[in-house]
Amino acid sequence: MMGFFGKHTGLYADFYEFTMAQAFFLSGKADMPARFDYFFRENPYHGGYVVFAGLDDLLEGLDHFSFDDEDLRYLESVGLNRKFLSFLKGFRFKGRVYAAKEGEIVFPLEPVMMVEGTMIESQVIETLLLNLLNFESLIATKASRIRSVAADRRVVDFGLRRAQGLGGIHATKASIIGGFDATSNVYSAFQYSLEVSGTQAHSWIQSFDDELSAFRKFAEVFPDKCVLLVDTYNTLKSGVPNAVTVAKELEKKGHKLVGVRLDSGDLAYLSKHTRAMLDEAGLQYVRIVASNQLDEYVIRSLLEQGAPIDAFGVGTRLVTGHNSASLDGVYKLCECDGKPRLKFSENFAKITLPGKKTVVRYYDGEGMFYADGIALEGEQNVNKIYHPFFPENRSSVRGLRSENILMKVMEDGKRLEKWTIADSSSMARKRLAALSPEHKRFENPHVFKVGISDGLLELRSMLVDQFHKAL
Amino acid sequence: MMGFFGKHTGLYADFYEFTMAQAFFLSGKADMPARFDYFFRENPYHGGYVVFAGLDDLLEGLDHFSFDDEDLRYLESVGLNRKFLSFLKGFRFKGRVYAAKEGEIVFPLEPVMMVEGTMIESQVIETLLLNLLNFESLIATKASRIRSVAADRRVVDFGLRRAQGLGGIHATKASIIGGFDATSNVYSAFQYSLEVSGTQAHSWIQSFDDELSAFRKFAEVFPDKCVLLVDTYNTLKSGVPNAVTVAKELEKKGHKLVGVRLDSGDLAYLSKHTRAMLDEAGLQYVRIVASNQLDEYVIRSLLEQGAPIDAFGVGTRLVTGHNSASLDGVYKLCECDGKPRLKFSENFAKITLPGKKTVVRYYDGEGMFYADGIALEGEQNVNKIYHPFFPENRSSVRGLRSENILMKVMEDGKRLEKWTIADSSSMARKRLAALSPEHKRFENPHVFKVGISDGLLELRSMLVDQFHKAL
Repeated sequence: MMGFFGKHTGLYADFYEFTMAQAFFLSGKADMPARFDYFFRENPYHGGYVVFAGLDDLLEGLDHFSFDDEDLRYLESVGLNRKFLSFLKGFRFKGRVYAAKEGEIVFPLEPVMMVEGTMIESQVIETLLLNLLNFESLIATKASRIRSVAADRRVVDFGLRRAQGLGGIHATKASIIGGFDATSNVYSAFQYSLEVSGTQAHSWIQSFDDELSAFRKFAEVFPDKCVLLVDTYNTLKSGVPNAVTVAKELEKKGHKLVGVRLDSGDLAYLSKHTRAMLDEAGLQYVRIVASNQLDEYVIRSLLEQGAPIDAFGVGTRLVTGHNSASLDGVYKLCECDGKPRLKFSENFAKITLPGKKTVVRYYDGEGMFYADGIALEGEQNVNKIYHPFFPENRSSVRGLRSENILMKVMEDGKRLEKWTIADSSSMARKRLAALSPEHKRFENPHVFKVGISDGLLELRSMLVDQFHKAL
Repeated sequence: MMGFFGKHTGLYADFYEFTMAQAFFLSGKADMPARFDYFFRENPYHGGYVVFAGLDDLLEGLDHFSFDDEDLRYLESVGLNRKFLSFLKGFRFKGRVYAAKEGEIVFPLEPVMMVEGTMIESQVIETLLLNLLNFESLIATKASRIRSVAADRRVVDFGLRRAQGLGGIHATKASIIGGFDATSNVYSAFQYSLEVSGTQAHSWIQSFDDELSAFRKFAEVFPDKCVLLVDTYNTLKSGVPNAVTVAKELEKKGHKLVGVRLDSGDLAYLSKHTRAMLDEAGLQYVRIVASNQLDEYVIRSLLEQGAPIDAFGVGTRLVTGHNSASLDGVYKLCECDGKPRLKFSENFAKITLPGKKTVVRYYDGEGMFYADGIALEGEQNVNKIYHPFFPENRSSVRGLRSENILMKVMEDGKRLEKWTIADSSSMARKRLAALSPEHKRFENPHVFKVGISDGLLELRSMLVDQFHKAL
């Protein structure tokens, strides 16, 4: 597990989780059973889907969610009750967790994770859960968009220097889940066994009196792994000609220059001229790498213009989830003490879905995703699903092939399954292939159908009625 | 120091820093002296200034920047050279660092930090430095904007659940530097000794059969620290009347309800009606706390509408630096082996400032900031400063009171000074008071003058000329 979760993980929480936990404890409700749903309300990037990520880190984090003496002294110093702190001393999360697989494609309003346990244990993990799932899903989704335009070209995460502090650690992992090939971030590559990548900065070139000497020296040290940064002075007049010289010198020694990197200027213009100069010198094998403020829109535009770029280094806009910055995932109580619970809201779109639920994915005749249905657990004969807010809109799902997308991933606080980042990445790739292009386009994507069952609709109506009567 | 920097800090880097370092090492340039500047090019938020933050964490990080056996085995596994790794085994950053004080108000293009050391030691810390300074400065600046509209009302960070992963840890610290009062983030409050705050979520209310019972029970457990969340069902018909009932019951027992919290709906409308209901019940002392998608613009609008809100909980938009997401700070070589160095660019705004520099702040007759001047070290008689790109524009600074804003903060890798977060926060408050309102307004702020000296202008021109001749 990552060093940063080795200690004090139990404190990775909002303080109200402890005040509430104490209040439950002192009210004799320490063991009251509860159930929470994790879901989000809007796709990021005005897009049509989310790649679910963060599950692996969350399950590891839950395994470390405990309190040592230092933590407990601290919590006492901020006013918590000693009896409650004795209870926390032995605390471990012992609940049950259902979740979509990491890499699954998920949609607004459907529970992507459900947590069952005591009220206290399900509540104190809220912030850890939201923080990791919201952020990693945000970035995996961004990465998948960039991957979709880059097609089979290489895409590498360059974002750590502009990442939101230590957020860069998980951003890198999530970008690999979403389809990136490698990263410049050594810390995350080490922690998660990812492919690491990187060669030289402008400072290398600047530290020599001339660019050619700088290129020669680097090629001498890395004769088979050399990518030369060609824009320190003038890309086409100086950088590329010098790179050609060095490539030819490497050839004589039996080596090959791997590539050149463009990091400024008009990448379409420069890449075309660079390609022509390399080809003219018989260096068809030398690849062109581009970086500098890239994202899915810029890469799409470059490729539409025919820019002969072989690999993209993507930084800030990947690791900060430009231009969304956060996924709006929430964690809401849906059952307590065996009774379904509702959070009412004057904004109908914020009324929650009560009770224990299942999420079913329906397929069309071509094996593509058709719709997702949210039903009550054990509900039989779900033949129709209803729009969650306008139940007048409904769709028949009779006879469609279907599957549950939520799996039990933790029981009694024990993780049931391990998987690799490659598994999650492969999951994302396969599942995206079953999502129609209309749902994946960047501009006004077709909204994927997510409906609720008869049973769930009735339960919600009943609870809303009860609520109105009680007012 | 924070647990997450206790181990593997040396790996918090981009891989090219290691490949370059190896190339310097194997070229016999391990000891070549170098100097780097940290500066940014644009203020975030289309604003007029930046609150400099992250210095404390960076200096601590530098102190932990080393490589244990596990790190070295990893670096060997990704292809680095054994001789170079033996060198890294004993590596410590032994350089000298100049920086603005944490909390200082700084502006585009001026060096905010300068690092002197060997090429290798100054280069390998690049990503750690950029990551921490960029992010903490981004958030401290955001916090200062929110503080400026909230005036003396309480502002509390609620952002951890939507923070960019572990980025929430430093976001919280930076928000306190920028002027926030407290945080809900227990982890950061513990690590940095910050005031922690938090009471209850909707789940507390929902876990009871009715709202009044939920309020009563919470007030029983926290009779003197009770803030009731009043929007679970219906704010004005249910939440506030129930809060009034509980406040009156608390009064009878000699306690006082601290506040009510509004977390949805129209906060202007609801806060006015809530205030009226509380006042009518003789509860003038009960405070109104508001949260839900707040930022400096929403808070300004609420207060312009006369919303009687006493405290604001600000989450996502604070900790993600909405709507900028990153500060564009860079780390550029300006001197190497005793010679000034330039990074040329076809985009003139990206040409760097060569040599060892000082940054001088000039004051006007009223003691307000007038301009910043960047000069060469030791340059005498700086009477004029020139626009960095249009030197035809110049300003006289003759006779103005001035001060150096860069201090030596590290020598031989040893930190020279410690300070508290309260010191940094107080620094930011005092320095912002000396910045004219025109530079602080949100819409088209007046650009603060940053100029370069005669000497620096000449040096740059000379190096640009040399570069053109060499092409």
